[in-house]
Amino acid sequence: MRAYSLILRKRDGHPVPPDALRSFLRAYHHGDVPDYQMAAFLMAVFFRGLTPAELSALVEEVLASGERVDFGGAPGRRVDKHSTGGVGDKVSLVLAPLVACLGVQVPMMSGRGLGHSGGTVDKLESIPGFRMDLSLERFRGQVLELGTALISQTPEIAPLDGKLYALRDVTATVESIPLIAASIMSKKIAEGIDGLVLDVKTGNGAFLPEEERAVELARTMIAIGGDHGRDVVALVTAMDRPLGVAVGNALELMEALDALRGGGPADLREVTVSLAAEMLVMGGAADGVAEGRHKAAAALDDGRALAMFRSVVKAQGGDAAVIDDPAVLPRAPVVREVTVGQAGRVASLDTRAIGEAAVGLGAGRSSLEDQIDHRVGFLLPLRPGDVVERDTVLAEVHAADEASAERAAGELRSAVRLGEDAAPPRPLISHRVTAAGVERLG
Amino acid sequence: MRAYSLILRKRDGHPVPPDALRSFLRAYHHGDVPDYQMAAFLMAVFFRGLTPAELSALVEEVLASGERVDFGGAPGRRVDKHSTGGVGDKVSLVLAPLVACLGVQVPMMSGRGLGHSGGTVDKLESIPGFRMDLSLERFRGQVLELGTALISQTPEIAPLDGKLYALRDVTATVESIPLIAASIMSKKIAEGIDGLVLDVKTGNGAFLPEEERAVELARTMIAIGGDHGRDVVALVTAMDRPLGVAVGNALELMEALDALRGGGPADLREVTVSLAAEMLVMGGAADGVAEGRHKAAAALDDGRALAMFRSVVKAQGGDAAVIDDPAVLPRAPVVREVTVGQAGRVASLDTRAIGEAAVGLGAGRSSLEDQIDHRVGFLLPLRPGDVVERDTVLAEVHAADEASAERAAGELRSAVRLGEDAAPPRPLISHRVTAAGVERLG
Repeated sequence: MRAYSLILRKRDGHPVPPDALRSFLRAYHHGDVPDYQMAAFLMAVFFRGLTPAELSALVEEVLASGERVDFGGAPGRRVDKHSTGGVGDKVSLVLAPLVACLGVQVPMMSGRGLGHSGGTVDKLESIPGFRMDLSLERFRGQVLELGTALISQTPEIAPLDGKLYALRDVTATVESIPLIAASIMSKKIAEGIDGLVLDVKTGNGAFLPEEERAVELARTMIAIGGDHGRDVVALVTAMDRPLGVAVGNALELMEALDALRGGGPADLREVTVSLAAEMLVMGGAADGVAEGRHKAAAALDDGRALAMFRSVVKAQGGDAAVIDDPAVLPRAPVVREVTVGQAGRVASLDTRAIGEAAVGLGAGRSSLEDQIDHRVGFLLPLRPGDVVERDTVLAEVHAADEASAERAAGELRSAVRLGEDAAPPRPLISHRVTAAGVERLG
Repeated sequence: MRAYSLILRKRDGHPVPPDALRSFLRAYHHGDVPDYQMAAFLMAVFFRGLTPAELSALVEEVLASGERVDFGGAPGRRVDKHSTGGVGDKVSLVLAPLVACLGVQVPMMSGRGLGHSGGTVDKLESIPGFRMDLSLERFRGQVLELGTALISQTPEIAPLDGKLYALRDVTATVESIPLIAASIMSKKIAEGIDGLVLDVKTGNGAFLPEEERAVELARTMIAIGGDHGRDVVALVTAMDRPLGVAVGNALELMEALDALRGGGPADLREVTVSLAAEMLVMGGAADGVAEGRHKAAAALDDGRALAMFRSVVKAQGGDAAVIDDPAVLPRAPVVREVTVGQAGRVASLDTRAIGEAAVGLGAGRSSLEDQIDHRVGFLLPLRPGDVVERDTVLAEVHAADEASAERAAGELRSAVRLGEDAAPPRPLISHRVTAAGVERLG
């Protein structure tokens, strides 16, 4: 089928034969279909979606465009987690060692932060010496020997996805559920996993703020997983406020270490334990979610998860001293408290604006070329529903200089809306989505 | 506004500020916005449409990208006709000299045929020596001196439209009413006209087969005309069968000459007289449509229209002998009659397939590079509702060789559907659309 006819079919809502779609994608990858035809196709997909057969063809072709990690018949089951991203989301740092120390292998490839939500790679790179650019061979070896490895995405995996994403990023075609789902699932399947647990964020700091869209994304990814023989379970979690208290790379790492010691903010622990329980069941290390929760909580409280994290840091060249002495981490020169400045009840937090305030401090990237300042960020304990006075502390800001601290203080104050009309905060975990259907939890 | 933000606004159905749209279009024309961003934008326009302000900005920027014919304060009014194209549509060949001989100037720029519908340029180029590539200066001069000139589109007029059209043609974004309307209207306004009469075809041989879409296109072009101080009136005419009997360039020219002598098929004459009446009213040469019809019919019957055509042929270098002796025209070596091959009532004609059969003979182009064979085509007198016998003549095919004649015969037979379930044929002229509203005529 000619590229033109294929675009026309998608535009008019007619199904595209899967083989034709794969040929079109392959030709694009090889440079035989120009960017402008792919851009028109992607915009048509934004409006028309993809049929299950088309979605499957897209995932297959993206997978075929690169290497796949092959664990062959190696013993053990391998399970990963993917989060759609949010503000203060440091769950992966706790979860990977936690699940691995309980006997389920976790091969985890993560992205860098872009825009208002942070990235696992940037958080771990706060640790002096920590290397995330392992080869696929070393990645595979460490997963098998140690139980987990955390690396950054490599160009060998799903290069067609990288090419498509770069085009979507400049043609306003990123926010398409089937394209997002295919992009995530193809990369995860290439990691060599048997199962995947999804943390789909919803609320005003999430990539997809609307709950229905979050559930739709979860269902789409579960369907792709089913097509490719992978178990997929999703939890829909709250992102109408940051997760935990710390926002910013070194600060989040410290909070993750608190959680690995059995402490840290309750919401961070609850999300981590819930995701771990699903992964343990999927990996055959627990008979049910209740048992999985119990095992996960115990491994946080008795130091096994922290010990696994220490092994990972050492294995990947990091300075393990950070675990016992956070002073080893880089620290911002300016630390100041910001007060709310008015009295009342917190009606809502503009979570996206909070994330953008962190980017403004240097904790994240506006464009892929930006450099990260691992030291900066803030601790923000405020939650919707809290009653505050004028001098209640809104946040402790860690900044590179006074000017950026001042700017961040203003942005954070603007992100707090006081009023008596507060909608109740979202339940921390609102839905559990499986191949069997959607369970409302919160 | 960045190109990305502009695409995003259109994608999400938010209005784009007209100045931002003009800058985006200008940057594209200058090569500063890449094809892939324009392709994504055009596909978003396909789904979201354009607001009146955006449409106006598009027309303005396309006009500004090239030259405009300036008649300044020259005496007389200038009115043109545009047809959305159909099978056997030779109206322009009759209409331009007819209206011009009655004192309204007709500056007519036409396209070449592409796909199943023919083009005025190809038809006129059947005349040995006839030149349609006049300079804009000579075009202007001939309109003022003689009353009309018929030329092909030149690259000096609306070059941005040419660039956009080439991209739309390979990205399945041609069939967008605002984009079609803006493309036509900007080129017509650049001709220097005071008014425009539109012949919007509808039915299974039309570019927009559905009546509602034809009316919508008419209304959109009328709105653009209003914005730019041009009178625009549209007639919606039938294209569920060819117009007239002849299909193919030299054959259509001969039929047009019959009409210019006061003869020819009744439907061709009726559409021509109706369009002429509108143009005469618009140009101040008739007080109403009834008077316009009367004057037009008289000028066909008494030879004035034919005399004007003769002057145009001479002025543009053509061999005026064709007017008196059609044998001067190129003739196909193979002429054969094709019978229907079955008895019954004609339920419908697949008009697009009839047009494609003509292209197959060599009368039209599948791609812009194809060469035209002016000799070939057919005479097809059959109409929906006709009762036929097995040996009733379906068409007289004029072909370059026996093989192509045979192929065309098969295609024409397949285009005739017999049955008792015929929908009544469309009224020849079904609607008259003006700034005041839509009048149903048929």
